[in-house]
Amino acid sequence: MAKEKKVEQITDMEVDFAQWYTDVCKKAELIDYSSIKGMFIYRPYGYAIWENIQKILDGMFKATGHENVAMPMLIPESLLQKEKDHVEGFAPECAWVTYGGSEKLEERYCIRPTSETLFCEHFKNIIHSHRDLPKKYNQWCSVLRWEKTSRPFLRHREFLWQEGHTMHATEEDARQETQQMLNIYADFMENVLAMPVIKGRKTDKEKFNGAEETYTVECMMHDHKALQAGTSHYFGDGFAKAFDITFTGKDNQLHNPHQTSWGVSTRMIGGIIMTHGDNNGLVLPPKVAPIQVVVLPIAQHKAGVLEGACALRDRLTAAGYRVKMDDSDQSMGWKCAEYEMKGVPLRVECGPRDLENDQCVLVRRNDGEKTVVKLEDLEAAVEEQLALVHQGMYEKAKRNLDEHIYPAFSLEEARQLQQEKGGFIKTMWCGDLECELKMKDEAGMSSRCMPLEQEHLSDVCPICGKPAKHSIYWGVAY
Amino acid sequence: MAKEKKVEQITDMEVDFAQWYTDVCKKAELIDYSSIKGMFIYRPYGYAIWENIQKILDGMFKATGHENVAMPMLIPESLLQKEKDHVEGFAPECAWVTYGGSEKLEERYCIRPTSETLFCEHFKNIIHSHRDLPKKYNQWCSVLRWEKTSRPFLRHREFLWQEGHTMHATEEDARQETQQMLNIYADFMENVLAMPVIKGRKTDKEKFNGAEETYTVECMMHDHKALQAGTSHYFGDGFAKAFDITFTGKDNQLHNPHQTSWGVSTRMIGGIIMTHGDNNGLVLPPKVAPIQVVVLPIAQHKAGVLEGACALRDRLTAAGYRVKMDDSDQSMGWKCAEYEMKGVPLRVECGPRDLENDQCVLVRRNDGEKTVVKLEDLEAAVEEQLALVHQGMYEKAKRNLDEHIYPAFSLEEARQLQQEKGGFIKTMWCGDLECELKMKDEAGMSSRCMPLEQEHLSDVCPICGKPAKHSIYWGVAY
Repeated sequence: MAKEKKVEQITDMEVDFAQWYTDVCKKAELIDYSSIKGMFIYRPYGYAIWENIQKILDGMFKATGHENVAMPMLIPESLLQKEKDHVEGFAPECAWVTYGGSEKLEERYCIRPTSETLFCEHFKNIIHSHRDLPKKYNQWCSVLRWEKTSRPFLRHREFLWQEGHTMHATEEDARQETQQMLNIYADFMENVLAMPVIKGRKTDKEKFNGAEETYTVECMMHDHKALQAGTSHYFGDGFAKAFDITFTGKDNQLHNPHQTSWGVSTRMIGGIIMTHGDNNGLVLPPKVAPIQVVVLPIAQHKAGVLEGACALRDRLTAAGYRVKMDDSDQSMGWKCAEYEMKGVPLRVECGPRDLENDQCVLVRRNDGEKTVVKLEDLEAAVEEQLALVHQGMYEKAKRNLDEHIYPAFSLEEARQLQQEKGGFIKTMWCGDLECELKMKDEAGMSSRCMPLEQEHLSDVCPICGKPAKHSIYWGVAY
Repeated sequence: MAKEKKVEQITDMEVDFAQWYTDVCKKAELIDYSSIKGMFIYRPYGYAIWENIQKILDGMFKATGHENVAMPMLIPESLLQKEKDHVEGFAPECAWVTYGGSEKLEERYCIRPTSETLFCEHFKNIIHSHRDLPKKYNQWCSVLRWEKTSRPFLRHREFLWQEGHTMHATEEDARQETQQMLNIYADFMENVLAMPVIKGRKTDKEKFNGAEETYTVECMMHDHKALQAGTSHYFGDGFAKAFDITFTGKDNQLHNPHQTSWGVSTRMIGGIIMTHGDNNGLVLPPKVAPIQVVVLPIAQHKAGVLEGACALRDRLTAAGYRVKMDDSDQSMGWKCAEYEMKGVPLRVECGPRDLENDQCVLVRRNDGEKTVVKLEDLEAAVEEQLALVHQGMYEKAKRNLDEHIYPAFSLEEARQLQQEKGGFIKTMWCGDLECELKMKDEAGMSSRCMPLEQEHLSDVCPICGKPAKHSIYWGVAY
């Protein structure tokens, strides 16, 4: 009864995927709206997912020699303008500060939409010799882009992210860094978030403003739309030249260093929701779930049940899991629905008869599978079940990805495939912007990436018939 | 030789304390200046101190039931204006956003100088019943106050901090929370940062804009000036009424909840520098030092030395310490001066003869004390020495505090004591603003706090001669 009432609250994803998504964000208490359009409040349960993401990613960054810093949030307009492509891309969506207290500022400042220019200004101060390189910096912060439309996690005017900024003595080192960070992102998405990815390079049209090359990890959502989940950019020495950053090399000559930047954001949480969620709500990857295991005592008024449940909670907490026990007076049906809604990967049920038999029941969120477990084996069983949850989630998402990649050999075929099946449409491509724009206009798809694992589907670009240079993925993206 | 050169780079604190402070911030690579006045760059070594502070404090907050959230960085002007005292205090130092992209905004937004108003708007959405209380939230973020003057860590236009915001069903609960957080701050300052504090209540003049009561932890710097290191505010239901936040109590009636907020910032790092630093540079409290132990091999070209030093580093790293080994080709003198400058609490020296004798030498940063240690006892010896560093730092700071608190029984005596000795001048006080202003005008001191441990020095206010209500501390503050 209670369960039905709870489940009623979210729209079925088959009925209206967008509404299902918004319902989950609200009902699982991930997010709230503020009075400024497009600026959201990250509530404790949503923010805790981000904290777990941060902890793991930050460890990966530090293990590869990166250091955290904090730069100012404001950029003087003149500083933003130093790199031409960069300012053209970002100026239209900057929020501008024009007054400090009651005084009009002589120069206006934008709230950082990204921080390449700030890092470059600092790099100029601290890089003088080849001994000062590489500089491998990262910062965790929020950035602001004055977008017209907004959607929880997917498109905020202000969003939380990390931005890595590095400087290297040689092009080779910088290119290696760009690839390394792309691989770290892919590793993280797959092995932590259970989200399979396609690694590839962006077209010139889709690359970051000011970058020479942008690499991306692209994911497929449950509705077969694409999500760009992280990017890693190689800048060459363009910014270094614009900002006059030089160092004395081992050869005693002045050189410009080579630069990268790379970032992921809370948009990944949107990806988690749309990759793994179902009609009962969230399904969270065990490694980032704020609550990994919920312990529910059954018939908790009966002698020994509550004590038994507490003992299970304490053992699992001691074993390092994030555990919650719910001994509130809500019904069992309500509780099950509540923690399903919240995507808790594993539920432990224990009632009087379980405890009599020295056992409890583990229920997996992702597939509902139940396992009866001897109490003495609890910790090992929970470890195993959480690993199975991750694996099951990954495999389901991988099937969704693999089953929705379609080769196409003409623009019309690409258009029809997208319309009828969605997903990624893969074709060959001549490399010309015109063909890319035509695909957008006539088939409604943007280029997602030229995958690192290139394929030979045919000799020609299906759009113009000229010789093909790359295989490429197209899709409808969030 | 190298050491002397290094030490020359910082001004002696006795010659010019302010210059000494700036030198340390720059030479220890804690901070860099940006192109906007008063907005600083937290460099890796400075930011790492903050990360260690965050990790420990965040654990203390969570252990007492607080949850982290993230609110927007912008506040609509109309929202800021909802609480009268609050807006009067903060509006003059707000930075105002007036354009989003190329469009002039209908209403201007300020970058948060603090977030009471944003939290209240959210609390109104999520608090309905007594079952929704308490709400105990915290956020780690940066805030912006358009100050005229600036100084690294002590006064930034943008600074990093945490702000806790809580709502409670009763006044008693909220007052308890205010005290609990004050105690957590005091505990943290003393047991983590080795900074003794005086806990007290601010006068009405000095309290937070919109608060009923502000509690503070006040520290004394090496130059005998005061630093307000953290504050905890009790708001009563003033904001709740202004924002129309109500809940249905157990009595089925509507009530306004009672509110607190509390915060500490990167200003604490300024406090660390000015409490513990010396003419050789930083002295960092072991619990927040980015490098707790530096291992320096002596005559590292000799057989076995480098291997021996690596083994020490690896053992200490495995034992959970933050360790660095420096086997660069700089001289031993340079290295000693460098890690003294950076305030590393403990230096481990090991040369060929040490290793032959299965020993190494531990050198404490705070007092230069050397201890010869058997290699087999390394981990235990390091633990003991780091505890002694903390203890030595605390005791020295405590002596500095205790020896510079002077009772005064007239305004003239207070003025003279401050001029000749500095420190905290303690007097009785009638509680009137007039007397407080007179102390400021004539003796150049602001009220620091009415200490929680009240004393009876005399029956009357030494400024006006009327009956005294409180004992109070005065000082010159950063």
